[in-house]
Amino acid sequence: MFVIMVYDAGERRNSKVLKVGRKYLHWVQNSVFEGELTEANYHKLKEEVRRKVDNEEDSVIFYKFRTMKYTEREVIGKNVDPNNFIL
Amino acid sequence: MFVIMVYDAGERRNSKVLKVGRKYLHWVQNSVFEGELTEANYHKLKEEVRRKVDNEEDSVIFYKFRTMKYTEREVIGKNVDPNNFIL
Repeated sequence: MFVIMVYDAGERRNSKVLKVGRKYLHWVQNSVFEGELTEANYHKLKEEVRRKVDNEEDSVIFYKFRTMKYTEREVIGKNVDPNNFIL
Repeated sequence: MFVIMVYDAGERRNSKVLKVGRKYLHWVQNSVFEGELTEANYHKLKEEVRRKVDNEEDSVIFYKFRTMKYTEREVIGKNVDPNNFIL
């Protein structure tokens, strides 16, 4: 599945969420990750994020897609192509 | 169509992009908007964003979906339900 993760976390927790995100997905913009994940890794990612954030203060949204067939992605300004990443 | 817009703009331009985003979409998180748009309004939104950002410094990503049938949205932490918004 394809996953987009966007987050907004307090300063101290921000770098922790960034670290978890980088483990599973490609960084594409400040506080935005995307990438292909197995169902198992998606659950692991959510578990790890859950342990890092403050539920009252922070917010993490996951958009999960079974297919990207109906999707287009357009960028204005700086473009980080996640396909160019070497993990 | 359904659109997710995520942006990262320099401080002075940030509030300008925020203002444009609010005009067309629902704010769901710091630097993240989503919502239904006509093709015409999607083009207007992109045009307005283009006029506000610095192409060398800022980045705005649009994910555009013809259908949300294959999509799930999950939130950890604070949740702003865009369906509760009154525009």
